[in-house]
Amino acid sequence: MSENNRVAKLAQRPVGAVKRDDFLIEDEPIQDPGPGEFRVKLAYISLDPAMRGWMSDGRSYVPPVELGAVMRAIAVGHVEQSNHPGFAVGDAVTGLFGVQQYAISDGAGVAKVNPEQAPLERWVGGLGMPGTTAYFGLLDVGQPKAGETVLVSAASGAVGSIVGQIAKIKGCRAVGIAGGAEKCRYIVDELGFDAAVDYKAGNLSADLKSACPDGVDIYFENVGGEITDAVLAQMNPFGRIPVCGLISIYNATELPPGPKNLRSILVNRLRMQGFIVFDFIKRYGEAVDALGTWHGEGKLKMREDVREGGVDAYPDVLNDLYTGRNFGKLVLKV
Amino acid sequence: MSENNRVAKLAQRPVGAVKRDDFLIEDEPIQDPGPGEFRVKLAYISLDPAMRGWMSDGRSYVPPVELGAVMRAIAVGHVEQSNHPGFAVGDAVTGLFGVQQYAISDGAGVAKVNPEQAPLERWVGGLGMPGTTAYFGLLDVGQPKAGETVLVSAASGAVGSIVGQIAKIKGCRAVGIAGGAEKCRYIVDELGFDAAVDYKAGNLSADLKSACPDGVDIYFENVGGEITDAVLAQMNPFGRIPVCGLISIYNATELPPGPKNLRSILVNRLRMQGFIVFDFIKRYGEAVDALGTWHGEGKLKMREDVREGGVDAYPDVLNDLYTGRNFGKLVLKV
Repeated sequence: MSENNRVAKLAQRPVGAVKRDDFLIEDEPIQDPGPGEFRVKLAYISLDPAMRGWMSDGRSYVPPVELGAVMRAIAVGHVEQSNHPGFAVGDAVTGLFGVQQYAISDGAGVAKVNPEQAPLERWVGGLGMPGTTAYFGLLDVGQPKAGETVLVSAASGAVGSIVGQIAKIKGCRAVGIAGGAEKCRYIVDELGFDAAVDYKAGNLSADLKSACPDGVDIYFENVGGEITDAVLAQMNPFGRIPVCGLISIYNATELPPGPKNLRSILVNRLRMQGFIVFDFIKRYGEAVDALGTWHGEGKLKMREDVREGGVDAYPDVLNDLYTGRNFGKLVLKV
Repeated sequence: MSENNRVAKLAQRPVGAVKRDDFLIEDEPIQDPGPGEFRVKLAYISLDPAMRGWMSDGRSYVPPVELGAVMRAIAVGHVEQSNHPGFAVGDAVTGLFGVQQYAISDGAGVAKVNPEQAPLERWVGGLGMPGTTAYFGLLDVGQPKAGETVLVSAASGAVGSIVGQIAKIKGCRAVGIAGGAEKCRYIVDELGFDAAVDYKAGNLSADLKSACPDGVDIYFENVGGEITDAVLAQMNPFGRIPVCGLISIYNATELPPGPKNLRSILVNRLRMQGFIVFDFIKRYGEAVDALGTWHGEGKLKMREDVREGGVDAYPDVLNDLYTGRNFGKLVLKV
C-alpha cells in the first residue's frame, strides 16, 4: 500500500475550459478512519458534466466546491479499514468520495454495490447516478406513453444511452442525437434505438425530421444550444422537455444566445422542466432495482470509457467530456 | 340600419408589422340569418395579441385565417334578428364574430352576457377571453401558493392586470412589469399590485431584484425577449413560468436570440409551460363565474381602451397593441 493519498484540490475557479492549473494535485498522508468512520480505496472516479458547475461560484443547486478543497466526485471502491458497524472491510461502495485515491467516510450518502452483478465501474455509470438520472428524468419528468417518440441528445453518453433504452422498454420510438457516425451506429445497432441523428453531419433539421416522422413528444435535453432550437421546431402539441443538462454551455465564458423558437413552447403547449437527480434521493432504491433488473435481463446495455492516468489525469480527461471525445460513461481508473 | 356590412378581410399575409394593405376593407350586403341562425350587430371588437399569429401560415394551435376571409376576432354585440331558439332579439352575446359590423351565427361558441353586471366592452376583456386566460394560466398552470411572489409582464394589459389581481386574491405578492411610469403607477395605485418595474427605465435587472426581494416563484410570461432573460436570473427553485404570450416577437421577420439563462431552468428545476385558453374551454363557466364574483366584490378592477373609427381603423389600432401604445384592454368600437 502506498503511504500517500494523491488528491486533486480545486486551486482556482476555472474560466472557460478546465485547465491543469485550476487544480493543485499533491500527495497527502493517508488518514486513518476515526470512530464511526471507514476508509475507502477508490477504484474508479466518475467524470460527470455537472462537475464544471460545481467548480463555479454561481448560484446552483449545491454549494460550489470551496477553493482548496478536494474536488467533488462520485467514485466507487472498496472499504479497506472500518470503524463503522454498517461497512465491513472488502465491501464495494459508491459515494461522493472526491478526486483522490483514498477517502474517509462516515457512511453518509454511501451505498453498497454488488460487483458480481456488474463490473465495479458500472456502478458509477448506468447503474449509478447517470442511470438514476435517466430513470427519473424520463419517467417522472417526461411521462412517456407507449407509441410516443422520445428524442434524446448526447445519446451515446452515460445518461442519454439509458434514456433511449428505457424509452424502448416503455414502448416508445427512441431517437438519439450523437456526434459522428460511430456513435450513431452504436446507439442503433448495439443499444436498439430506432434511429440516430448525427449533429455533426450538417443537416440537423432535415435529419431530425426524417428520424422523427411523427414529430417529437419528449425531448430529453442534455446539451442546449443550436440543437434545442432545431428540436423545438419538431415538437408535437403537449410535448415535454426534461432539462437534464446543457453541456454545450458549461464552459462558456460568454453565454451564447438561447433558443429562438420559444413560440413552439406557447403554440404547442410544451412543458420544459429542469430537474436534478438529487431531488429524487428517497426513491433511488426503486430506480437502482429497476435498472439492475433490466440490465440483468439484457435490456439495458452499458458502455464505460475507462481512462488511465489516475488522479493526475483528471483535468485533461474531464475536458474530453465537454468536447465529446469520450465514448460511453467516462471514468478515471485510480 | 345601414344596408351594408363593413368588413375587413385578410388580403395578404403580413410581413413584420401589420399594414393597411394587408386587408381588403369593403362593404357587403347585410345577410339575413338562415334557419337556426341569428344575426348579431357588433358593438365592440376585441383586439388581441394572438391576432398576429392567426394571420400567419406557420403551424399553430388553430388554422390561420384564410386569404380573402373575414379577419378572425372575438366581439360583443346584440342579436337583432333570430331564427335560433336559444338566442332572442336583444340578447347581448360574445363570440368569434370577426372584424365586421354584422355577423351571422349558428350559436357555436357564442355565449350570452349580462350588460347589467358590467359594460358590454368588458365582456371581451377582463370578463372575457383575457380574463379566463389569466385565470387558467395563473391558477392551473402556475399553481400559486399564498406567500409566493408572482411576477407578470405586460402587467397593465388585458391579461396581465387580471393575473396580478388574482395573485393578490390568492395571498401572493404581485409584481408587474410595464412600460412607463403611468402604467406602473396604475397597477400599484389602482390595481393593488405590491410593486411595479418599468422596463423602459433601463435598470431592469436591478429593479426586478428590488421589487422581488424574495425572488420570483411564478413568472407569467406575456412578452418574451430580453425581459425573459432578466427574469430567469431571479427565479426561485421550483418556480413556474406559464407561457401565455410572446408579444415582443410576434411581428419579428427575423426571430431575435432567445434567453441565454436557460441554465436557470436546470439548476432551479423550473417548469416553463405554454398554454392556450381554448384548451380549458370546458371550464369557461367556472372562470367566468369567479371573475364575475370578484369583479362584483370590487376585487378585480378592469380598464378598457376603447378606440373609435370602426372596421376601417382595425389595422392601425391593432398595431398599437404590439408597440404598447394601448392602456388597458384594447377594443374597437364598431
